[in-house]
Amino acid sequence: MPDPIVFSGGSAGTWRVRSQGAIRGEALPSVARLDKGAVPRPSAAWVIGGMTSNLRYTHASEKRVLDATPSVLGRPAATYAALIPITKSAAWWGMAQDERRAVIEDKSRHIAIGSDYLSVVSRQLVHCRDQAGAMFDFLTWFEFAPADEGRFDELLGKLRASPEWAFVEREVELRLEKDG
Amino acid sequence: MPDPIVFSGGSAGTWRVRSQGAIRGEALPSVARLDKGAVPRPSAAWVIGGMTSNLRYTHASEKRVLDATPSVLGRPAATYAALIPITKSAAWWGMAQDERRAVIEDKSRHIAIGSDYLSVVSRQLVHCRDQAGAMFDFLTWFEFAPADEGRFDELLGKLRASPEWAFVEREVELRLEKDG
Repeated sequence: MPDPIVFSGGSAGTWRVRSQGAIRGEALPSVARLDKGAVPRPSAAWVIGGMTSNLRYTHASEKRVLDATPSVLGRPAATYAALIPITKSAAWWGMAQDERRAVIEDKSRHIAIGSDYLSVVSRQLVHCRDQAGAMFDFLTWFEFAPADEGRFDELLGKLRASPEWAFVEREVELRLEKDG
Repeated sequence: MPDPIVFSGGSAGTWRVRSQGAIRGEALPSVARLDKGAVPRPSAAWVIGGMTSNLRYTHASEKRVLDATPSVLGRPAATYAALIPITKSAAWWGMAQDERRAVIEDKSRHIAIGSDYLSVVSRQLVHCRDQAGAMFDFLTWFEFAPADEGRFDELLGKLRASPEWAFVEREVELRLEKDG
């Protein structure tokens, strides 16, 4: 079942913000800490949220690879995290399903690239485009060990260089450290 | 952009309920009238809602057929309508994208069947599975002229006989007449 996931930025929360900025488009107001939960944190400076959901592009053969290395959140060694909210363009959403799939995987190898990093980067995709008043289309959450941040940078670099990213019109990045 | 669509069942609203029942699973409480809008109607007996969204299964070649006969809501002659809320099973949502597409179109011809009725049945698909606390996965709304109700029954009969419908675990149907 879909689960609600809410990120509250402010002065309190489990995650300390190490860095925050806009990759493309408008930034989010700077905050010192981030909380991740099922409901908004009272007195947060901003709240963005959505729902986990079913797979939208992954084929059965790719799902078997993902299922063999499930993304486990909350691993004790994974004290670093990143939150990357993204909005794609009207041109993206106006494409048919097979056209979007062609860009995501045939041209960009998004699923295959992500699969290469499953063992070091745990991920959770939160959908928010279909929520009333949503500021972003997706919120992508990553957890990894500090020693693996270079691998995470490599993953981001590959995705951002892919044809799919031509359809990203807003992208914000927060790097976080667990200390709460 | 996704738009919120809300159906309020109760004693008021534009649409008079001609008939109401459960095709599979639990029924909705019986109401005399239905209102369709962007927000809940005050003092409704029940409210179900969601968002219009992007295409999830339709390929470019099929989209060209749909785009050539756009579904126009509110046609003066279309004084009959139907609201069909549906919930699909966990087995459905656990399938990969290509597996769901294979059931919907390769095996069930859902998109092709729907396309055959575009000229007489206007449709709007409202997604609600990704809304917190949703009672259904989809709310399907149809408008047609009274003289075309036989064609609408034919459309429903074909879809309900398809392999895709083995994954439908709850289905409710309201038939409506505009008189407000």
